[in-house]
Amino acid sequence: MPSEEQMRTAMQSYLDALNSADVAGIISLFAEEGTVEDPVGKGVYGAREGLTRLVGGLPAGATFTLDTPVRASHASGAAMAFTVQLERDGVHTQIRSLDVMQFDENGLIVEMKAYYGPSDITTT
Amino acid sequence: MPSEEQMRTAMQSYLDALNSADVAGIISLFAEEGTVEDPVGKGVYGAREGLTRLVGGLPAGATFTLDTPVRASHASGAAMAFTVQLERDGVHTQIRSLDVMQFDENGLIVEMKAYYGPSDITTT
Repeated sequence: MPSEEQMRTAMQSYLDALNSADVAGIISLFAEEGTVEDPVGKGVYGAREGLTRLVGGLPAGATFTLDTPVRASHASGAAMAFTVQLERDGVHTQIRSLDVMQFDENGLIVEMKAYYGPSDITTT
Repeated sequence: MPSEEQMRTAMQSYLDALNSADVAGIISLFAEEGTVEDPVGKGVYGAREGLTRLVGGLPAGATFTLDTPVRASHASGAAMAFTVQLERDGVHTQIRSLDVMQFDENGLIVEMKAYYGPSDITTT
């Protein structure tokens, strides 16, 4: 089972990789058979395909910031609430997301689910 | 499927019921067949048994405060990060928790999972 510290570090690395739009870095955090569902309710994808699409869809300068420290668990899952800020064609968008991840025994992510709905997105 | 607003309201009601140690109120938010796993990794219980134990174990004056707004989703799940403060025998304990809930079509909770590990608990 991964340690709490391993899960916490991987989740921070996930945000760091998003902040630098590092698609190879983010894929390296996932197990080969890993899956992503971002957002929950809009389909489950293989990690490589889903993450490439996710990172590729980000405009330059998008930021991902923890709202409160990552939570670990007594098992192989962890979760974190964070806020995304991005700007596209002069429109500023804020997304309040919350990711729940499951890990394998090597500390690689095998499942990522991002909880946010239309009401968690605001544009100004 | 429950609306985002229904899920958000139920999760705030869950925290409100914990803040007032209202065991009947909290059980009323769950479907009859609902389950609770609090914390994740320490066993799944029927909602009535698990919640009675959870609320019964709280010292008077325990508080539950959202760290950041509740997240909804495009499906029948929602999640929230919050912090528990409690005092027992002069020892102050803080628990950073994060609950993920699944709802039925009537907006009743059918599954609650609370993510926190030993490293999310501090005592002073």
